[in-house]
Amino acid sequence: MQELQVILLISSRKELPMTKPTLRPDERIDQLYSQDIQIIQSPEVFAFSLDAVLLAAFAKLPARATSRTVDLCAGNGAVGLFMSHRTKGQIAEVELQPRLADMARRSIALNGLDDHMTVYQGDLAQVNQWIPKDSVDVVTCNPPYFEDLPDSQKNPNQYLAIARHEITTNLATIVATTSGLLKMNGKAYFVHRPDRLLQLLTLMGQHRLAPKRIRLVYPKPGKEANMVLVEAIKDGKPGGLRFPAPLTVYDATGNYQAEVKRLLYG
Amino acid sequence: MQELQVILLISSRKELPMTKPTLRPDERIDQLYSQDIQIIQSPEVFAFSLDAVLLAAFAKLPARATSRTVDLCAGNGAVGLFMSHRTKGQIAEVELQPRLADMARRSIALNGLDDHMTVYQGDLAQVNQWIPKDSVDVVTCNPPYFEDLPDSQKNPNQYLAIARHEITTNLATIVATTSGLLKMNGKAYFVHRPDRLLQLLTLMGQHRLAPKRIRLVYPKPGKEANMVLVEAIKDGKPGGLRFPAPLTVYDATGNYQAEVKRLLYG
Repeated sequence: MQELQVILLISSRKELPMTKPTLRPDERIDQLYSQDIQIIQSPEVFAFSLDAVLLAAFAKLPARATSRTVDLCAGNGAVGLFMSHRTKGQIAEVELQPRLADMARRSIALNGLDDHMTVYQGDLAQVNQWIPKDSVDVVTCNPPYFEDLPDSQKNPNQYLAIARHEITTNLATIVATTSGLLKMNGKAYFVHRPDRLLQLLTLMGQHRLAPKRIRLVYPKPGKEANMVLVEAIKDGKPGGLRFPAPLTVYDATGNYQAEVKRLLYG
Repeated sequence: MQELQVILLISSRKELPMTKPTLRPDERIDQLYSQDIQIIQSPEVFAFSLDAVLLAAFAKLPARATSRTVDLCAGNGAVGLFMSHRTKGQIAEVELQPRLADMARRSIALNGLDDHMTVYQGDLAQVNQWIPKDSVDVVTCNPPYFEDLPDSQKNPNQYLAIARHEITTNLATIVATTSGLLKMNGKAYFVHRPDRLLQLLTLMGQHRLAPKRIRLVYPKPGKEANMVLVEAIKDGKPGGLRFPAPLTVYDATGNYQAEVKRLLYG
């Protein structure tokens, strides 16, 4: 199966962080320069990709301190960390895999964001044990992209397989959970593969989420889209769907386009 | 209400056509250079716009002489005329407004395409009086874009109002009619406004049409899409939706991008 995740060229941080975190042997600290965020990564377990950067940039967060944002399928916490400078409110990260949740917790401490961000380790279907229904302003999610079909090839690495395939959850559960968390007029932000868009839109329609903005992401000029960003509003009026200008990641010569460069390097 | 139709710069034909048609005082003959097609237009009644050119280029027609293509909401026949060089099969144009159907018939004669194209004047909901159900390979449609809401401003010119607003038909009827005409695995091609896409996709899902390709059309760099092209297959498997490279009509300096130039001028 084709892996569409774009590998980022992010230099590992040279200087020592202020609070030196405990790193496992396979881990390193990467930095998203545009956000001045350091993030614990492991190529053997989980490393964020451009999807996370684009989702974080696409989401609109209320700045106020009383706002509540939840990132589902949070992995090592990248999306929440990248959004953290845009709100004074709380950001919760929900991640099933203990190893990834632990990386997210250490990255939050590393960036001094403990008062601002919380990691809940467990199944998103049980999220209401931590976060009440109808209480959240924004939900973001970079879900597993691939259906768990009997004949689908999965990564033998179980960490990566769970992050990429719907082994432990599925899109229907994720969309239902998202809608349940959101207040009326709360906003959901998803990144997914274009071939799942129709399913995502159908599920949103079944769960009181009205799609409002869809941004297509194309890898380079002349190529078909390999990512799609969707904004939906809970109990929003139907209609009025908009498609902002597309994002093309690389130019014809293989360099990042200006917008992507800005998102990565500031 | 904002009119998103892009006005084309198409020179009126200087030389006299081989078969000189009878023109009404408000009519002129325009030419799509890339196709060497002449078309009778009237600014007071109907003139095709870029939408028709893009829809015709987006549609894939079987070349064989036994193929059957139907263009619904045909207007002055532009879409069918622009596709006529790509198939040896029959193309039927269905148009409600007698004045427009008459323009289409005279344009067909003007281009010597009478053996190849037929105009049916009447309501598309009654199309099966002319064309049997489940008999068509391809249906194309550039439908009225705007819903007929009580408070929607309409053009006082009734010809243009009917072409732009769902006064005499609506998207549900058009999609149902399209599906009824198509053979199994027949293809439907629509152009519409992005804010109607969700409704179009939902109706397709209700009428055995599986969307397979969606191409977004943006007016210029940095602007949101103002047109969307959709390909669907009757009784196609769900999933596998693709988004080919986007089309941006103008470049930053206000000139047509290369692809549009090619479509218009060859």
